[in-house]
Amino acid sequence: MFQSGFICICGLPGIGSVGKVAADFLATSLQCSTIKPFFSPGFPPQVMVSEGLAKLMHGELMRPREREKLLILSGDAQPLDVLDMYSLAGEILQALKEQGVTDVITLAAYVGENTEKVLGATTDPNFAATLESCNISMLRSGAIGGLNGLLAGMAPRYGLRGVCLLATTSGSESVDLFAAINLLSAIDGLLSLDLDLSLLEPALEQQEEMEAEDNDMNYR
Amino acid sequence: MFQSGFICICGLPGIGSVGKVAADFLATSLQCSTIKPFFSPGFPPQVMVSEGLAKLMHGELMRPREREKLLILSGDAQPLDVLDMYSLAGEILQALKEQGVTDVITLAAYVGENTEKVLGATTDPNFAATLESCNISMLRSGAIGGLNGLLAGMAPRYGLRGVCLLATTSGSESVDLFAAINLLSAIDGLLSLDLDLSLLEPALEQQEEMEAEDNDMNYR
Amino acid sequence: MFQSGFICICGLPGIGSVGKVAADFLATSLQCSTIKPFFSPGFPPQVMVSEGLAKLMHGELMRPREREKLLILSGDAQPLDVLDMYSLAGEILQALKEQGVTDVITLAAYVGENTEKVLGATTDPNFAATLESCNISMLRSGAIGGLNGLLAGMAPRYGLRGVCLLATTSGSESVDLFAAINLLSAIDGLLSLDLDLSLLEPALEQQEEMEAEDNDMNYR
Amino acid sequence: MFQSGFICICGLPGIGSVGKVAADFLATSLQCSTIKPFFSPGFPPQVMVSEGLAKLMHGELMRPREREKLLILSGDAQPLDVLDMYSLAGEILQALKEQGVTDVITLAAYVGENTEKVLGATTDPNFAATLESCNISMLRSGAIGGLNGLLAGMAPRYGLRGVCLLATTSGSESVDLFAAINLLSAIDGLLSLDLDLSLLEPALEQQEEMEAEDNDMNYR
Repeated sequence: MFQSGFICICGLPGIGSVGKVAADFLATSLQCSTIKPFFSPGFPPQVMVSEGLAKLMHGELMRPREREKLLILSGDAQPLDVLDMYSLAGEILQALKEQGVTDVITLAAYVGENTEKVLGATTDPNFAATLESCNISMLRSGAIGGLNGLLAGMAPRYGLRGVCLLATTSGSESVDLFAAINLLSAIDGLLSLDLDLSLLEPALEQQEEMEAEDNDMNYR
Repeated sequence: MFQSGFICICGLPGIGSVGKVAADFLATSLQCSTIKPFFSPGFPPQVMVSEGLAKLMHGELMRPREREKLLILSGDAQPLDVLDMYSLAGEILQALKEQGVTDVITLAAYVGENTEKVLGATTDPNFAATLESCNISMLRSGAIGGLNGLLAGMAPRYGLRGVCLLATTSGSESVDLFAAINLLSAIDGLLSLDLDLSLLEPALEQQEEMEAEDNDMNYR
Repeated sequence: MFQSGFICICGLPGIGSVGKVAADFLATSLQCSTIKPFFSPGFPPQVMVSEGLAKLMHGELMRPREREKLLILSGDAQPLDVLDMYSLAGEILQALKEQGVTDVITLAAYVGENTEKVLGATTDPNFAATLESCNISMLRSGAIGGLNGLLAGMAPRYGLRGVCLLATTSGSESVDLFAAINLLSAIDGLLSLDLDLSLLEPALEQQEEMEAEDNDMNYR
Repeated sequence: MFQSGFICICGLPGIGSVGKVAADFLATSLQCSTIKPFFSPGFPPQVMVSEGLAKLMHGELMRPREREKLLILSGDAQPLDVLDMYSLAGEILQALKEQGVTDVITLAAYVGENTEKVLGATTDPNFAATLESCNISMLRSGAIGGLNGLLAGMAPRYGLRGVCLLATTSGSESVDLFAAINLLSAIDGLLSLDLDLSLLEPALEQQEEMEAEDNDMNYR
């Protein structure tokens, strides 16, 4: 479906961190290297320190080592301010356009009751049917907030097609690995990336244990 | 009164949604088509999804299919930030000026006790008497907030005349259809649009039922 | 003291409205006419309506009918946002510089215990002694907030001298006429304007009656 | 270690005022004079008055009377707004670059349990070991907020090296002199400034007395 296109998959931090976890997994699995950092005066005004090394908060556009016509975008944070969200989204889309990208796929969370594990939405009226033929059910009604919404929604203003994949989540976990894996399965199906999702199993088991403990706590 | 003018009627979301409901009804009744979308970094940072189709929040300037020298402006939201309200209002007024518009009529709500169903205000000191001769009572004292106020108030800075029509409402309903109909009647009287307001009767009956239920709830 | 200078007296709304009341009284007494309006995207986004006439919130630079080398600045509001305060102050000071103004005197409130009715501060280290020789005591330590502070404090960046006169007030009244009159007396002494402050007596009596009623309320 | 470099030491107000107290002490000890003031629309919109003299809030870049290749930066406040923090940090770094500065050392507070009195972080991966060889332990994990974080974190974008020295503090005191002295000792060790820290002893004794009184208060 996307064979002839040049895709950028974007996952910024959001509800359940589903998009960011999925994008970071893609970056590692596909052995990506950074081609462009993005800074924003809307990011929290702080540097992150790890082992004495201080880095300004930023987003990163990354390129896989072997796969062509694919980019991954992730980041430390979303801008705190609405104006900065719009302007960072515009800056990113401008850069994607210059790279030759044709389709922006953002990864986000859908909070609510739904039997579908992953739902889709697109800015291209003719493309919804194609996505449905690939087993992505369309979101009937709703709103997608933050950068993951804006990057898809603003894509047409830069001549790009916007697609948003939403993983159903309870919204109560700070990191929902199950939902992130559902997104990765959907992306794998759409783009044939041959991802080894079993690498996430140890982390999944850890999450299940933590949830079991959480439940146990409720009885005390 | 407006025979020789080129009018734009603006109804953005606000108290009781009266302006937006009225403008949307005009857009449907007059079979309008969009001639220009407006975006703002002050709109809530989200895309609206309907049947899988994702659209960025926006305002729309629309042209009726048959009626000349008339435009309708409506939108999904008002900017969240004061600065963005001023800058979107300026951008819209600049576009109206370029279209040849001479009079901007905004539709808004008046919350408070008043025997008049619709009140008026204008930026043109000589025009208040003309409006009163058309049975629009003038607002004696008050303030009109948000885009519906700014579009009228800033109009003279773009060489346009600003008029604001305010429908009296309680301010307690999220959608006050009665007030919207009062605005539409006033507009119909001023511009002879031959609107069929009976089309709103089913919605009105629904609202009356909901209000009855609401009242009932108070007794439990 | 100011004989050779070109003075602008500024009174924007603030604590006790002392600056604005004083500036508005000067504008009326000196039969001023507007020479330049100031708008700001930081003003509350609303139009003020009076007898059906809608006006956008604004500031006004005014010129007395007969007195030369004197301007009065007043306004409907202060910007809501700090950034807009700085940028409006800069825009006003630029306009004053272009008019030939040499000294900016702002009128503000001092909340706190002080035996002096009016206190002064200036950006010119050599000028404090001159003001003291005119019976204006200097503020020993404190901060002056908002436009009345910024217009004085930023004046040197535009080559102007900044002076701030502060009337002692309790800070508990929305309009403190007594404090405004103290400012007017001080200004009259400095600039020999021949003001007839008895014109404010009816309003003062009204305020005293209201305060008496207020006090009475405390006993119930 | 910094022999061949041109250093700017920055201490803006923050937790426990440790950076500002240390920078102000350096400015006095090294008999600095101001070479460039910095203003920001993000500073609180007020003028500070001292003995009748009104000054706009500002930051100051200062040069020691005798020591070459060293600058000190301090200021009255940090911008209230995130956007203004980034833009002031950029403006300062641009000015430092133009002065020929190669290393920016910011002084800040670390709130939390740590046996080290001073911790370090740097934007240069090769420089952490050098700092450790000078007895500065590296911060293992954390975030440094505000201008003291941004000035170090953004330094590489201007071709400069960023270093942040953090003094451990409880975070409960508005001025933590002990922590400021620890920073000054560390700086003295790194740059051989021959500071006479005994000058701070009277202030330290005063602080100890106040703390003793505070503790005493807890028993009443």
